[in-house]
Amino acid sequence: METVRVALGERSYPIHIGAGVLDAAELYRPHLGAARAAVVTNPVVAPLYLGRVKAALARAGAQCFEVLVEDGEQAKNWSSLERVLDALLAARLGRDGVVVALGGGVIGDLAGFAAAVYQRGIAFIQVPTTLLAQVDSSVGGKTAINHARGKNMVGAFHQPAAVIADVAALATLPERELRSGVAEVVKHGFALDAALVDWLEANMAALLAREPAALTHAVRRSCELKAAVVAADEREGGRRAILNFGHTFGHAIEAGAGYGAWLHGEAVAAGMVMAAELSVRAGLLAAADAARVRALVVRAGLADKGPALALERYLELMALDKKAAGGRMRFVLLERIGQAALRGDVDERLVREVLAANVSPAPAAAAR
Amino acid sequence: METVRVALGERSYPIHIGAGVLDAAELYRPHLGAARAAVVTNPVVAPLYLGRVKAALARAGAQCFEVLVEDGEQAKNWSSLERVLDALLAARLGRDGVVVALGGGVIGDLAGFAAAVYQRGIAFIQVPTTLLAQVDSSVGGKTAINHARGKNMVGAFHQPAAVIADVAALATLPERELRSGVAEVVKHGFALDAALVDWLEANMAALLAREPAALTHAVRRSCELKAAVVAADEREGGRRAILNFGHTFGHAIEAGAGYGAWLHGEAVAAGMVMAAELSVRAGLLAAADAARVRALVVRAGLADKGPALALERYLELMALDKKAAGGRMRFVLLERIGQAALRGDVDERLVREVLAANVSPAPAAAAR
Repeated sequence: METVRVALGERSYPIHIGAGVLDAAELYRPHLGAARAAVVTNPVVAPLYLGRVKAALARAGAQCFEVLVEDGEQAKNWSSLERVLDALLAARLGRDGVVVALGGGVIGDLAGFAAAVYQRGIAFIQVPTTLLAQVDSSVGGKTAINHARGKNMVGAFHQPAAVIADVAALATLPERELRSGVAEVVKHGFALDAALVDWLEANMAALLAREPAALTHAVRRSCELKAAVVAADEREGGRRAILNFGHTFGHAIEAGAGYGAWLHGEAVAAGMVMAAELSVRAGLLAAADAARVRALVVRAGLADKGPALALERYLELMALDKKAAGGRMRFVLLERIGQAALRGDVDERLVREVLAANVSPAPAAAAR
Repeated sequence: METVRVALGERSYPIHIGAGVLDAAELYRPHLGAARAAVVTNPVVAPLYLGRVKAALARAGAQCFEVLVEDGEQAKNWSSLERVLDALLAARLGRDGVVVALGGGVIGDLAGFAAAVYQRGIAFIQVPTTLLAQVDSSVGGKTAINHARGKNMVGAFHQPAAVIADVAALATLPERELRSGVAEVVKHGFALDAALVDWLEANMAALLAREPAALTHAVRRSCELKAAVVAADEREGGRRAILNFGHTFGHAIEAGAGYGAWLHGEAVAAGMVMAAELSVRAGLLAAADAARVRALVVRAGLADKGPALALERYLELMALDKKAAGGRMRFVLLERIGQAALRGDVDERLVREVLAANVSPAPAAAAR
């Protein structure tokens, strides 16, 4: 097991990474307070891991109960949030209770947000079971639900008490979700660490084959990179925004295609290709470097073009992005491989050119 | 104008108190960011003050728009919260936008919670127009909505950027709401400051007659007392709980009678009488001091007995209180006038005795 620490003063927490860690009672025990825990999960994850997590919590001394919500991105909504909060209240979970988020990014975001607002905030533990959640969404305290007008539009910054990332759980992950997670590893490389890009170019096959050493490296390095950024800028006042490389386009793809049609990582992958090309057109990045972004996305088995929506629809959806300031779109662009920066000075004409060149001509459904 | 400062490091903020301060553009200006503001208010407050607040915001350089929600405690619910968030998204308010809460405690709690979760948190300014909001709910960053299973069960700690408390606005306040606000001033006295109790005993008539000097003193002193407690314990880890004197019983009264039937301060008033009597029965307080609590509540024109609910219903509702720890009820009791303490060692038998002695024998409706 390896442990990465997110340094946030009194809100600091450990990320434990390894095969089999979700069974380790001693990793839960320090965070259980008065020992009642609500495990939030879904009907896909529950048969695989719920029994083991509950057994570990019991060994750690916690009484626990589970709350099931629907599987999939569409579960990140008001009614699921209400269902979770209703269940916590029905069980009379106190402010000293703990929420355990067992599942992928949707479960982590939803359960984390429920924990953030339940009685004005209680503790939660992330037990991510997808690669995307392990390398990205379980770390950093961003929680949210979606809104018809945009993704993650309602949420909170609420740091977990601990993250328990079991790479052995990735063995059961559907292929498409694995690739979606790889997209976020690719993002960490291009935005933050040229050495990780090199490693990915050399090890993509091992990663897609789920070799444990490759998975562990990808998760650990992603967590280290993200933890450093989060420690410097917990609430996304500035630097943290660079973790959104590919996300301005990506969120528009997800929302435009209908939540759930594109997985988050799939949308981010195509979004990174667009953002890299925008970086080239804005005169910041060499064309050969943008080609590395596209090539790595393609080698990960991910689409490098967005769905066939009207350009105006893309622009409308992007204007809603949380990075927009004073009504102006802002983009995370690459200055070189491993170095991203938030830019507010991008000409909309260039954005239109990038969209025109990178949107699939076929209807979205056929493009899948 | 007087200004009380809430000292919370980077989350510190001023409370400006005086007659006419809601027109003062210079009090809004430092907090307006990129100058778009959403004023959340209701159809009762809007005709009285919305135009003036919008004019002040315009003079301060902000574009603004309003969002109206229903009047009354029943507006502190999911559907109002959704309506506010929908309106902010429809207007494409960015993360640099500001929410202005114009109204009483319900508006402040609801708009503050909307600001807390909108795009994971944006700034808000409290412009309280009721005595209760000026002396209590607008200060300290507690925001929330109610749930069928309990009051304020879903919410966040989210500090305002500023509080602008215009005592001239209290001229239009219905009598019942004025008295409800006086209850929280009484609470601050008994829980924190014996001198304020003496002042209230000498000046209750002036306060109820809305003499500006009396109102200003009550608001300023309450804000000073509350600010000191909040500065010491922002997230209610310990000491802040003493501000809930009267609230364990009070929340049960509000929920049991049906939200809105009893105003918050009315419920807290009867709750304080019960908590004082419980303090006597627990051997902490002299009976003569509990009599001062009851006498001041009665002099404020407030009921000193709770509605006619079954004792078991009271106990069930109190068990849901957020101060409950490990399933045990906890109470804020008086150790002497001006000194409250959180106690978890109260015998349920004593609670039953207090309820039996202080619940109105008549049906709740008749008791009003």
